[in-house]
Amino acid sequence: IQSKLPGVGTNIFTTMSKLAEEHKAINLSQGFPDYNCDPVLVDLVSDAMKNGFNQYAPMTGLPLLRTLVAEKTNKLYGSQYHPDTEVTITSGGTQAIFTALSACINAGDEVIIFEPAYDCYAPAVKLLGGLVKPFELVPPDYDIDWEMVKKLFTANTKMIILNSPQNPTGCILSDKDIKSLIKLTKNTDILILSDEVYEHIIFDGRKHQSVALYPELSERSFVIASFGKLLHTTGWKLGYCLAPEKLMKEFRKVHQYNVFSVNTPMQLGVANYLKNPESYTGLTDFFQQKRDLFRTLLSETKFKLLPCNGSYFQCVSYGHITDVKDTEMAERLVKEFGVASIPVSAFYTKHTDHKILRFCFAKRQETLEKAVEKLMNL
Amino acid sequence: IQSKLPGVGTNIFTTMSKLAEEHKAINLSQGFPDYNCDPVLVDLVSDAMKNGFNQYAPMTGLPLLRTLVAEKTNKLYGSQYHPDTEVTITSGGTQAIFTALSACINAGDEVIIFEPAYDCYAPAVKLLGGLVKPFELVPPDYDIDWEMVKKLFTANTKMIILNSPQNPTGCILSDKDIKSLIKLTKNTDILILSDEVYEHIIFDGRKHQSVALYPELSERSFVIASFGKLLHTTGWKLGYCLAPEKLMKEFRKVHQYNVFSVNTPMQLGVANYLKNPESYTGLTDFFQQKRDLFRTLLSETKFKLLPCNGSYFQCVSYGHITDVKDTEMAERLVKEFGVASIPVSAFYTKHTDHKILRFCFAKRQETLEKAVEKLMNL
Ligand SMILES: CSCCC(=O)C(=O)O
Ligand SMILES: CSCCC(=O)C(=O)O
Repeated sequence: IQSKLPGVGTNIFTTMSKLAEEHKAINLSQGFPDYNCDPVLVDLVSDAMKNGFNQYAPMTGLPLLRTLVAEKTNKLYGSQYHPDTEVTITSGGTQAIFTALSACINAGDEVIIFEPAYDCYAPAVKLLGGLVKPFELVPPDYDIDWEMVKKLFTANTKMIILNSPQNPTGCILSDKDIKSLIKLTKNTDILILSDEVYEHIIFDGRKHQSVALYPELSERSFVIASFGKLLHTTGWKLGYCLAPEKLMKEFRKVHQYNVFSVNTPMQLGVANYLKNPESYTGLTDFFQQKRDLFRTLLSETKFKLLPCNGSYFQCVSYGHITDVKDTEMAERLVKEFGVASIPVSAFYTKHTDHKILRFCFAKRQETLEKAVEKLMNL
Repeated sequence: IQSKLPGVGTNIFTTMSKLAEEHKAINLSQGFPDYNCDPVLVDLVSDAMKNGFNQYAPMTGLPLLRTLVAEKTNKLYGSQYHPDTEVTITSGGTQAIFTALSACINAGDEVIIFEPAYDCYAPAVKLLGGLVKPFELVPPDYDIDWEMVKKLFTANTKMIILNSPQNPTGCILSDKDIKSLIKLTKNTDILILSDEVYEHIIFDGRKHQSVALYPELSERSFVIASFGKLLHTTGWKLGYCLAPEKLMKEFRKVHQYNVFSVNTPMQLGVANYLKNPESYTGLTDFFQQKRDLFRTLLSETKFKLLPCNGSYFQCVSYGHITDVKDTEMAERLVKEFGVASIPVSAFYTKHTDHKILRFCFAKRQETLEKAVEKLMNL
């Protein structure tokens, strides 16, 4: 058969995690914790299975979980998502993103993506016959010049994808950014897909500027979130999508025929866990501590640290040391120093190489210490 | 936004299960067990979580599970699927089907579907801009006249979807059917999507004619299977896709950006469970007993039984009693008799009404007895 995605190979996360394994390197490449989740949560899922909750969940998700999601979101952001019609539980953030795009993007539609960007947006847009309009951001601050963004608008602009806190840069959108976006898209039908899976991982007392805070924007937005990031369970593949009813209706038409429904005992376990509002309040502090530790440790290496205001990723630049390509540098770090990272050029359509590597610090203190010890040899 | 699936509403399974709940009817509509799975399997998943297997699985699935799937399939059907390149673990059969279609179907491609058909094929084809070419089968035997099927072939015929044992009819494809299909599609590029999620639920000593048995066919086929049906865990959303490497390569490109990967502790629990080859050998007998019991019980009602050679669905006709539409009849059965079924017209593009209802018998003996007791009042 003719490939619908001729350019696509195995993604960078799979490639680097595999390389890390082969060389027994410390894996700070793919974003996932190397410590276990709360045993209380594990027991709640086990109980759900033992109690026989092993058959299809409702297509939209367990009512209890949807209710808790709506309550949490509406309390945090002053929004008014209705659990029955505006919340859908998904098989992770990625499935939510793919499904939202599938519901909206037609051949010829243009989608603006800020780069460096998480790697699942562009292939999904292309698969649907859409056109990716990358807007390249520049280190170290990756600031968005909204007047320049406006120049990308055409009659075919269907959607803008946001991601804050951002993977891979650790940047966050400010209130000013969102207001510029609102001004820019006023009186247009441009949809927003806002990937907010790192919403609770934000530092130094900053406030996450969820699209849900802004009714002018949220009325044409899909907001994507992830229990994997909230509960240190990336392998459970549980996330959700929030959207106003008219968008959610279309989202669900696709969801119904894509995965139909999502893992029942995991949904019930998570719902029972979230009933206790204390269950995730420590998350921000937990990661602040890891970020602070990791930055302190890294500051002793030859790398230059980029800002990190959110997410569990820390970027560093090395252009002042050597001018080898970042893909090669990442390979060298694995093979010669025993630490796996992600070359940030992998997040640009044009593979733009600013000589920056991304490290994941959702790791035990011991892991971070050992990794930096190895990086000291650079 | 403009709907990409204007005709689609909530599907019949959701509708009937909801109606059943509202009226506290016995739910023989949606296909799922009302008994629990093996507690050994539950413990294996719990152990996986306790042991920290809670982060992303490899994109293609856990190697151990892929290996066991390939071994099981190759042993049963004499095929030669390679676990690394020709097996992918999915979030249920539905996601496997959606992903295979997404990887292959372009605007204008025609897909032949035998009706009555499980309801997820046609919307997925339409979403992708493909054209559904329904081929209507007629009760009570739903035999396929392959010479007539051939008349549907055009230059745009991209794929034929098979489903044996069939949902909703309980029919199975014979060796003769498959041989006709092979003859018909020889020297063509027509792809086959073979939904075999009920492969082990087949009666009276019959043999499942998997596409995997026929190299001439499997070389251009996606074969879809389901752990939910194998292990009585429909809510775990675990299935898999088998395909030759060149097709699997395209499948994985989409899978990677659709769900990325599948629930890790469930994959590991299932893999450890399947290590014991005894774990599912009783399945065929288990359902044979349920089918025999249910048919014996039903034969005392006014319904006429259709043949049931496979799947966990039994169809009955009632045209000799009344000529109300099957959708109304299904509603009446819930409201007046307290039993939920599925009207088979829901499985035809044209809603062709042969006055047939589908009952799911993956239920406890007690449930089946109580249901039929209520149906005796008809
Ligand atoms: C879906 S695998 C990638 C995990 C992740 O979010 C990242 O490493 O960026
Ligand atoms: C995915 S919900 C439907 C379950 C099922 O296979 C059926 O009832 O036909």
